[in-house]
Amino acid sequence: MSTRFEFNPISPQALLIVISGPSGAGKDSVLQELKRRKLPLHFVVNATTRSPRPGEVEGVDYFFVSRHRFAEMIEQNELIEYALVYDDYKGVPKAQIRQALESGKDVILRVDVQGAQTLRKLCPEAVLVFLTVQDEQEIVERLDRRSTESEENRKLRLATVRKELMHISDFDYIISNREGQLEQTTETILAIIQAEHHRVQHRKVSL
Amino acid sequence: MSTRFEFNPISPQALLIVISGPSGAGKDSVLQELKRRKLPLHFVVNATTRSPRPGEVEGVDYFFVSRHRFAEMIEQNELIEYALVYDDYKGVPKAQIRQALESGKDVILRVDVQGAQTLRKLCPEAVLVFLTVQDEQEIVERLDRRSTESEENRKLRLATVRKELMHISDFDYIISNREGQLEQTTETILAIIQAEHHRVQHRKVSL
Repeated sequence: MSTRFEFNPISPQALLIVISGPSGAGKDSVLQELKRRKLPLHFVVNATTRSPRPGEVEGVDYFFVSRHRFAEMIEQNELIEYALVYDDYKGVPKAQIRQALESGKDVILRVDVQGAQTLRKLCPEAVLVFLTVQDEQEIVERLDRRSTESEENRKLRLATVRKELMHISDFDYIISNREGQLEQTTETILAIIQAEHHRVQHRKVSL
Repeated sequence: MSTRFEFNPISPQALLIVISGPSGAGKDSVLQELKRRKLPLHFVVNATTRSPRPGEVEGVDYFFVSRHRFAEMIEQNELIEYALVYDDYKGVPKAQIRQALESGKDVILRVDVQGAQTLRKLCPEAVLVFLTVQDEQEIVERLDRRSTESEENRKLRLATVRKELMHISDFDYIISNREGQLEQTTETILAIIQAEHHRVQHRKVSL
């Protein structure tokens, strides 16, 4: 009997996974843990005009660029999304994402909540993950541990967190990244990626 | 500083996971593999009027009931879904699902494609997984290995498979359960369950 139907069991579409959430929710730690696992994922390196924090590496943590260069990137439409965050610009390079997706790799990027909302509009197929914490106290404690935060920035961040929590419903997934649960959070993100590769709306089924 | 927001990080809602797909796609094998893992899942035992196949156990594989008892179950609204499948009735007991969900356990049930569509209407929050195979040849080979199938039933099933494959878009997830990939299919289902517990629309967030 001839084969009448057949479909590609492996989704040909690479996923764009957006890790977002309030400051202090642990986005950076989760991304570091994901990187440590040496999976075939492309981690987008964002551009920023802020100075490197101790230990941060150019081209790995961020592309640290001048305000002049950043303005040029905006002008030349090189950024899929950018924002002014506490006096510093941060942006997501477009070409990097496109190249990685075309190579078939799932792409992971980290943006603030406002940026995630922009990405949702630009790319409805993106998978939006909201990382959060158990309660406000936990955010306060985490921000206090960041010696680089001025009292003013700290207050600003906390106010922003409150606002950002109103936008959870714009996201696909929410993960409470509680203290000491970094590994569990990472496993959940990997489960989400695996599951999303099997979502019907991401797939091109040919019968 | 007082705690201003807080939410339940563990979804209080148990999931209803529906494993469906054409005959010969391996629904039973996948469910057996899931059971083997001793996870806190409730596996719904369906009722059927067909005779047990060799090795099938009453109350484990199915509740094997008479046509008289089955008619009574329909009449007394005890079934969430039922269908006449190749001269035999199969039905999904309602009370069993309700009790399991109330206990907080995720519930897994197996229905044919038509049944899955009924469940989607009755319970929009259900997670619908479509198990399938690589191509028609694979289904033919699997049905051939079932010595209990008559040539007539075999043809009927194949025609049904073709029809059922038109309804993939009614499902949330699709998994190609290819020969020798039972373990991988099972892992994917477990990833789907983990991910779905973090879906925003399943969660009751209180701020």
